[in-house]
Amino acid sequence: MADIVDLNCDLGESFGAYKIGNDEEILDYVTSANIACGFHAGDPATMRKTVKLALKKDIGIGVHPGLQDLIGFGRRNMNITPQEAYDLVVYQIGALHGFVRAEGGKLQHVKPHGALFNMAAKNAVLSEAIAEAVYQVDPELILFGLAGSELVKAGEKTGLRTAHEVFSDRTYQEDGSLTSRQEKNALITDHQVAINQVIRMVKENKVESTKGSDVLIKAHTVCIHGDGKSALEFAKKIPQALRSENIEVAKIGDFL
Amino acid sequence: MADIVDLNCDLGESFGAYKIGNDEEILDYVTSANIACGFHAGDPATMRKTVKLALKKDIGIGVHPGLQDLIGFGRRNMNITPQEAYDLVVYQIGALHGFVRAEGGKLQHVKPHGALFNMAAKNAVLSEAIAEAVYQVDPELILFGLAGSELVKAGEKTGLRTAHEVFSDRTYQEDGSLTSRQEKNALITDHQVAINQVIRMVKENKVESTKGSDVLIKAHTVCIHGDGKSALEFAKKIPQALRSENIEVAKIGDFL
Amino acid sequence: MADIVDLNCDLGESFGAYKIGNDEEILDYVTSANIACGFHAGDPATMRKTVKLALKKDIGIGVHPGLQDLIGFGRRNMNITPQEAYDLVVYQIGALHGFVRAEGGKLQHVKPHGALFNMAAKNAVLSEAIAEAVYQVDPELILFGLAGSELVKAGEKTGLRTAHEVFSDRTYQEDGSLTSRQEKNALITDHQVAINQVIRMVKENKVESTKGSDVLIKAHTVCIHGDGKSALEFAKKIPQALRSENIEVAKIGDFL
Amino acid sequence: MADIVDLNCDLGESFGAYKIGNDEEILDYVTSANIACGFHAGDPATMRKTVKLALKKDIGIGVHPGLQDLIGFGRRNMNITPQEAYDLVVYQIGALHGFVRAEGGKLQHVKPHGALFNMAAKNAVLSEAIAEAVYQVDPELILFGLAGSELVKAGEKTGLRTAHEVFSDRTYQEDGSLTSRQEKNALITDHQVAINQVIRMVKENKVESTKGSDVLIKAHTVCIHGDGKSALEFAKKIPQALRSENIEVAKIGDFL
Repeated sequence: MADIVDLNCDLGESFGAYKIGNDEEILDYVTSANIACGFHAGDPATMRKTVKLALKKDIGIGVHPGLQDLIGFGRRNMNITPQEAYDLVVYQIGALHGFVRAEGGKLQHVKPHGALFNMAAKNAVLSEAIAEAVYQVDPELILFGLAGSELVKAGEKTGLRTAHEVFSDRTYQEDGSLTSRQEKNALITDHQVAINQVIRMVKENKVESTKGSDVLIKAHTVCIHGDGKSALEFAKKIPQALRSENIEVAKIGDFL
Repeated sequence: MADIVDLNCDLGESFGAYKIGNDEEILDYVTSANIACGFHAGDPATMRKTVKLALKKDIGIGVHPGLQDLIGFGRRNMNITPQEAYDLVVYQIGALHGFVRAEGGKLQHVKPHGALFNMAAKNAVLSEAIAEAVYQVDPELILFGLAGSELVKAGEKTGLRTAHEVFSDRTYQEDGSLTSRQEKNALITDHQVAINQVIRMVKENKVESTKGSDVLIKAHTVCIHGDGKSALEFAKKIPQALRSENIEVAKIGDFL
Repeated sequence: MADIVDLNCDLGESFGAYKIGNDEEILDYVTSANIACGFHAGDPATMRKTVKLALKKDIGIGVHPGLQDLIGFGRRNMNITPQEAYDLVVYQIGALHGFVRAEGGKLQHVKPHGALFNMAAKNAVLSEAIAEAVYQVDPELILFGLAGSELVKAGEKTGLRTAHEVFSDRTYQEDGSLTSRQEKNALITDHQVAINQVIRMVKENKVESTKGSDVLIKAHTVCIHGDGKSALEFAKKIPQALRSENIEVAKIGDFL
Repeated sequence: MADIVDLNCDLGESFGAYKIGNDEEILDYVTSANIACGFHAGDPATMRKTVKLALKKDIGIGVHPGLQDLIGFGRRNMNITPQEAYDLVVYQIGALHGFVRAEGGKLQHVKPHGALFNMAAKNAVLSEAIAEAVYQVDPELILFGLAGSELVKAGEKTGLRTAHEVFSDRTYQEDGSLTSRQEKNALITDHQVAINQVIRMVKENKVESTKGSDVLIKAHTVCIHGDGKSALEFAKKIPQALRSENIEVAKIGDFL
């Protein structure tokens, strides 16, 4: 079977008079969109516009639920209970689904945002609450989580299809976790190195850790950024680079 | 055909540590619940609990979308555009629908809250945006509006089933509008007078205006309050009083 | 006596991850800053940074209180009571004053934002509540209002120093009010026309209305915008243009 | 010198239509009030009313800054930076000070709320940021912290007067920390036991830990709750019980 991978990007993060991102442009390069739902970013008008745009470009539509922390962009860990996580995920899936139904579309996936994503990666109980929320609202939804994390494990256990997500611009530790952003070698800024890392993860299911050893990793979807000039340039390059290596690029709902 | 009417009540208005209302108790007397969705009141946890309670008691579940004005409880008119009204209604229907799906239930209706309800009553363009939002998300939903108002007209025009709502504890003007709360004779505090007004509205489709003349009025659903001791007492009396007059009390989705 | 005028600009409107404006740059051209306080825009970190910047550049520091409507940027009229206006103005003056004290500075003025500014311009009761709030917190503060509006009248009545504010890029009606933005001829886009209008308002206290007649107008301070390329270019030109006409440009607290 | 102690209570926690607490009643028994500032609870109208009430009853007025987490009532730990803590404390002191100035009063103290209080107790860097914020706005303010905690240490280091706060209804560990609420023996429900604990802390500066050993503790101020019937009854008893043991009860600003 041919190798295949999904490219996902956070979208719809504008809020009222505040604009963030190059949503229209980045949608030409990715296959799945994670749309903010008004808790950490986004608002009803932005959700409507982003859903329309994604449908027009035939992009897989995903819910991007975050912590209720607009001022912190959902990036600050909060000591929420599993029940609170369940509730905020149900709420945000529902809210986005409202716009998707209004536009005659279909939800594809759910990817928790920022601190919620990071906390869930290491917290099985929190992950199970999130997976349960997704399953209860719609068992057909695909759950995105850091490759090998507690979140994908919880999704599988709950009976959901799950997508292991990898990063092109981050280095990995020997246990398969991402190198902390506090570390100097956390980020990969060279586009070619980043592309090579992705290709190897997709083709060989391996990534070289910062210690030099190979780590096994599944790669169903790659996280792509749309903010800033360099990110957008990389976003343009990556689909071409993958296809030239005979890796098909398609939305996750079409092949998982 | 026997006379029949629905009794609706605003529910799920608690927020975080803040409690409002006697949700569990009032649900024994009404047939439809308007559940707040986190904009003017309510929060994800409260929505989940209220949906569960309504399903357990077989109450018709309604969305109660409000203005994004938590500090004003959605009661202060805001100069929003029709597009903004559309967006906030779609969002809030979706959010509540998330919990309803998670609990295996079904949405019955939408009733705008407070200032949104009052502004829509007199504003055809705003009403059309609200009706359009409801229709786009789910054309099977019933739209509640003040009896004879622009909102029910817009609902009918859009192709929705609409419920004309009447008030037991408010007096009416000759044009069928409610007497402003600024006026001294706006409220009916005598329970028997209130009950008689409802019975006449349901049986004869008439209400006596403050000027003494009869006004034609449709009465599909009666707004019942759950806050405060007197309101709860009235809520207990009204279903009995209606049934003793051979008026059936049932949720609107069962007979409209 | 030489002619003299203040140039004011809205600043500190960023929020969390969301950036708006060119605060550092525009502060080189204006003499007074209206700093958002977290209700319609701004946040604690932005307030601290903006106060520091204004102190460093010796700019008059003003409070820019707005409606509690972040998603609408405080631009949507809301039906608030005079008491609510009083309370939100006291709160926001206090909040900014916290940062000003922490940095060893002094507040100069208060200019209501957006819908609050516009509603106050025509509403004497609302204006009196705002003026009272300013006076009660600090009677030395200068109140900014649209030239000739109810707000400046209320400020004078309350015993505050008041600054009549004029606009360079808006046309005027015969009654001294601004032409509504709904009208085609509301905006002045030609920089030279705008400069000439300001010069005449400062030197002759007159402005030509859209009907061609002259209207008397006081001009203590001119509203300057910092958003967008053209606005910034205009901001650079206007102090030079005024000085070349022997109009001194200084912060209002130095000459009112 | 006679023994003396302050009794403090959280107040002004209502928000919009939501009421919490028995503010008017509890103010008859305590000597200092910690007033919420709109982040975790409270709103501008409530702040104004509570300040007025405290001034009328000659109660020491304190700022009760909390995390920006209204839905969680500021009780959920959040991973904020020291700079963010500094900024939110400056903002909230300022906001309450606005109302205090408007009413002609004076601020007495600052007591962080909930999760901010608890995180600061164990985190020296966070505590130093909070103490610095208080000092920069007004070095005369008294900083409240858990007796023996990092927060009081930071206050002293910064040059502030600090008040060691003790709890009547909580048991203590051998290191002087409070027994976690997760533990069965965390709470003291017997009013007489609670009163005896306070008397001993004030007179002997000792408290018996759950292990039976005596722990040294300073007791400048006792935290009193106003919510619920039992709490209010206890609040009534405690000043009498203290005075009958020759312990004077006075606001902290009068004796620290």
